[in-house]
Amino acid sequence: MNTLNYIEVLGTRAREARSELAAALTAQKNDALSEIAHILRRSSDKIIEQNRIDIDNARKKGMSQAMLDRLMLNETRIDVIANACESLTKLDDPIGMVDGGGVRPNGIRVVKTRVPLGTVGMIYEARPNVTVDAAALCLKSGNAVILRGGSEAYHSNKCLADLMRAAVERAGFNPDIIQLVENTAREVATMMMKANGFIDVLIPRGGAGLIDAVVKNATVPVIETGKGNCHIYVDESADLDMAVEIADNAKTQRPSVCNAIETCLVHRSVAERFLLKLKKRLDKHAVEIRGDRLTKMILGADVIDVTEEDYATEFDDYILAVRVVDDFAQAIEHIRKYSTGHSECIITESLYAAEEFQRRVDAACVYVNCSTRFTDGEEMGLGAEIGISTQKLHARGPMGLKELTTVKWLINGNGQIRT
Amino acid sequence: MNTLNYIEVLGTRAREARSELAAALTAQKNDALSEIAHILRRSSDKIIEQNRIDIDNARKKGMSQAMLDRLMLNETRIDVIANACESLTKLDDPIGMVDGGGVRPNGIRVVKTRVPLGTVGMIYEARPNVTVDAAALCLKSGNAVILRGGSEAYHSNKCLADLMRAAVERAGFNPDIIQLVENTAREVATMMMKANGFIDVLIPRGGAGLIDAVVKNATVPVIETGKGNCHIYVDESADLDMAVEIADNAKTQRPSVCNAIETCLVHRSVAERFLLKLKKRLDKHAVEIRGDRLTKMILGADVIDVTEEDYATEFDDYILAVRVVDDFAQAIEHIRKYSTGHSECIITESLYAAEEFQRRVDAACVYVNCSTRFTDGEEMGLGAEIGISTQKLHARGPMGLKELTTVKWLINGNGQIRT
Repeated sequence: MNTLNYIEVLGTRAREARSELAAALTAQKNDALSEIAHILRRSSDKIIEQNRIDIDNARKKGMSQAMLDRLMLNETRIDVIANACESLTKLDDPIGMVDGGGVRPNGIRVVKTRVPLGTVGMIYEARPNVTVDAAALCLKSGNAVILRGGSEAYHSNKCLADLMRAAVERAGFNPDIIQLVENTAREVATMMMKANGFIDVLIPRGGAGLIDAVVKNATVPVIETGKGNCHIYVDESADLDMAVEIADNAKTQRPSVCNAIETCLVHRSVAERFLLKLKKRLDKHAVEIRGDRLTKMILGADVIDVTEEDYATEFDDYILAVRVVDDFAQAIEHIRKYSTGHSECIITESLYAAEEFQRRVDAACVYVNCSTRFTDGEEMGLGAEIGISTQKLHARGPMGLKELTTVKWLINGNGQIRT
Repeated sequence: MNTLNYIEVLGTRAREARSELAAALTAQKNDALSEIAHILRRSSDKIIEQNRIDIDNARKKGMSQAMLDRLMLNETRIDVIANACESLTKLDDPIGMVDGGGVRPNGIRVVKTRVPLGTVGMIYEARPNVTVDAAALCLKSGNAVILRGGSEAYHSNKCLADLMRAAVERAGFNPDIIQLVENTAREVATMMMKANGFIDVLIPRGGAGLIDAVVKNATVPVIETGKGNCHIYVDESADLDMAVEIADNAKTQRPSVCNAIETCLVHRSVAERFLLKLKKRLDKHAVEIRGDRLTKMILGADVIDVTEEDYATEFDDYILAVRVVDDFAQAIEHIRKYSTGHSECIITESLYAAEEFQRRVDAACVYVNCSTRFTDGEEMGLGAEIGISTQKLHARGPMGLKELTTVKWLINGNGQIRT
C-alpha cells in the first residue's frame, strides 16, 4: 500500500468533495459566490490584520515596494475582490453547455457536453487577490481548487481560504472544494507538479521564472500563462498621432502587466517624426528608452544603447526598447524572434499591411490600431479571466469560465453494435 | 551560439516550411492529399519491397504475430491508406473557422479564429499506416509534422515519407512540412519530448508504456491518447440479450484496440442469467474469463481467478475480467478505481440509472445501451481521427481536424486605448 503524500491527500479530498459540486445547480453555486463576497466584506478587519503580519514580515525581509503593493490588502481592495465574486454570479454557467453532436446514421445519439476539468492546481506568487479570484472561478465552473500561493502571503491566504471554506459550507458544499496548501515549502510545489491522477491541470500565475519552473518540471498538464514580451510596430503608413496614443497607453497605463508593450518597432521612413513625438509623450512618465543606433541618432545621446537581451526582456516597468526597422519584413522577423506569443500590434492605414500582420504574426492576440492592453478576459467579452494562455493547447489568449471545463461525450443507443 | 540538436534542426525546417502551409487555400491542400494518394498507389510495389525488409528483420528478431500483422503492408492495405487520404479532401477545412467574437462596447472588433497548432510531433510504434494518416491529417489542418515511428518500421516509413514529400512538393509545398526522424535512437525521441519552441504539441500513439514515458518526460505539451481500460456494467434492469450482444461486440469485434472492453461488471440480481448467456456467446471466440468468487460459482471452476492486477489491465486480447457487484454504487466505484477515462458503458432500461451513470462516470465517452467500439472519430461524425484523447486538456475523446488547431484572436480598432 502506497502512502499518499501531502498533495495526494489534498487531491483525494478534493476529488471526493467535487463530485457534488460538478452536479450542482447554477443557483447553488451562485449562492456560494454571494456568500463568499458577504463573508469577505464582513471580515475585512480580520483579513487586514492577518495581511498586516505578512506585510510586516515581508518588509523586514526587504521585499520591493512593487511586490509589497501587490501583497497589501485594505478595505477598498477587499471590496473589489468581493465585487468580482459577485459579478461571477451574473455569468453563464459553462457546465452542461452542449458543444456539438447529433444522431449518427446507425441511430446512436451523440451529445458533446461541457463538464468541469476536475481539480485545478494554482501556483502563484504573493498576491492574495489571486486566492479568491481563482477559487471563485473554479467554483463557478464546478472545479475543486488546490491553491499554493507565495509563502510571503501565507497569513493572508490562510485567512481568506478559511473564510471561503466557511462560506461554501454554509451554501451546502463540502469545504474541501477549496483547499490551501499550508506547507509552502518548495518540495510541496514540486509534489503538485507531479500529482498526476490527483490534479487535472496546473495553472501557474506569476513571473517568467515561476512559469518556466512549472512547465519544465510538471508531469501534470499545465496551462502556461502570462509571459508577455509584446511589441508595437509603427508602419510607414501609420497615423502617427494614433501611434503615439496607443504606444503610450500600451506602455504606461499599467507597465507591470503582461499585456503591456516592451518594444516599439518603427518603419525607418517615419521613424524621425514618430520617435520625436513619442519621446515627448513618454517623458511625462519618465519612461527610459533603450534604442538602436538610428533611434539614438534621432533622439540623442541620452537614449541608452539597446542590447539583444533587452529585446528578449519583459521589463514590466517604465522602460521601452526601440528599434528602427528597414521594412515590414524586418518587423515581422523581429517579432518572430523575440515574441512570447502573447499580444502583438501594428499601427497602419494599409489594409494589406494589417492583414499580412494578422496572418503572419503567431500570437494569441494580434492587434490593428488599438492598444495591446485589451488582452483581458473582461475586455474581450469573457466576463472574467483566470489567466492569459500563451500556449497553443487547450486555450490561447484570455481564459474564462469555459476554458476551465472539458467535454464529455454522452452516447445513447438501443442495442447498436459495430460491424 | 548554441548548436541545434537533430530535432531542433528538423523543427527549424518545419517552422520555415509551414508558414506557407498555414496560409494555403483549402484547394491546394486537397490537391496535395490527392497527390499523396496517387503516388502511394502508383508506388505500391516499392513500398511493399521496403516493407518486406522490415518484416524480415522483425521476424528474425522474434516479433509477435500480432505486431507483425500491424507492421505488414500489402496492395489492399496501401489502397485503404490512400483512400483515407482522399477522403480527407471531402472534410471541411478547420483553418479560418470563426469560433466567436463580436464588437465590444468601445468599438474594437474581436474575432476568434482557428489557426494551425504549428509543428506536431508524432511518436508511435511500428505501424506504417500511422505515418501516412498523421501526415495527411496534419497537412489538411495546416500543420507541419515530425514523425518518429518505431525502428522496426524504418524502411517502410522512410519510403512512405519520401513519397509523401515528393507529392506535397509537386503540389507546390515545401517538402519539410513532412519530416521523418531517421535516427530512431531512444535519445532522439527524448529530444523530441524536450523540444520546446520547436515542436508545439506531441501526440504519442501506442501502448501504455510508450504513452507513460512521453507524459512523464515531455516538457513539450502532450496529448495523451488511447489508454483504454474500458468497462461495461450490466444493470439489474438490463435487457440481457442486448447486454450479451453489446458485451460480445465490445470485447471480440476487435480486441486489440483501445475502445474494446476489458472488464464486465454485472448486478448480482441478474448475474446468473446474464453470465450463463454471455459465456455461451464468448466461448465461440474462445474468450478467457477471469472472474471473481461469484462469477466462478455461476460459471464453474474453469474460470480463472481474477486479480486486482487484472482489473487494472488493458488486455487488448481475448480475455475478459468479470465481477459481480452488489449494486449500482459498487459498479460506479469499481469504474472510478480502474477506469482510464476512455469509454464506459451501462446496459439498463432504467432512466434513472442511465442518467446517473452518465453523470457520475468521469470518462471521455459514456455510453448507454450501445457498444464502446463507437469511440472513433469517423463513427462519432468527425470524419477522421488522429487519436483518442484520454486527458481533459485541449481535447477529450476522438480528435479530428479541429483538435489539430488552436485559436488566434484578431482585434481591430481605430485608435482605442484602455482607460
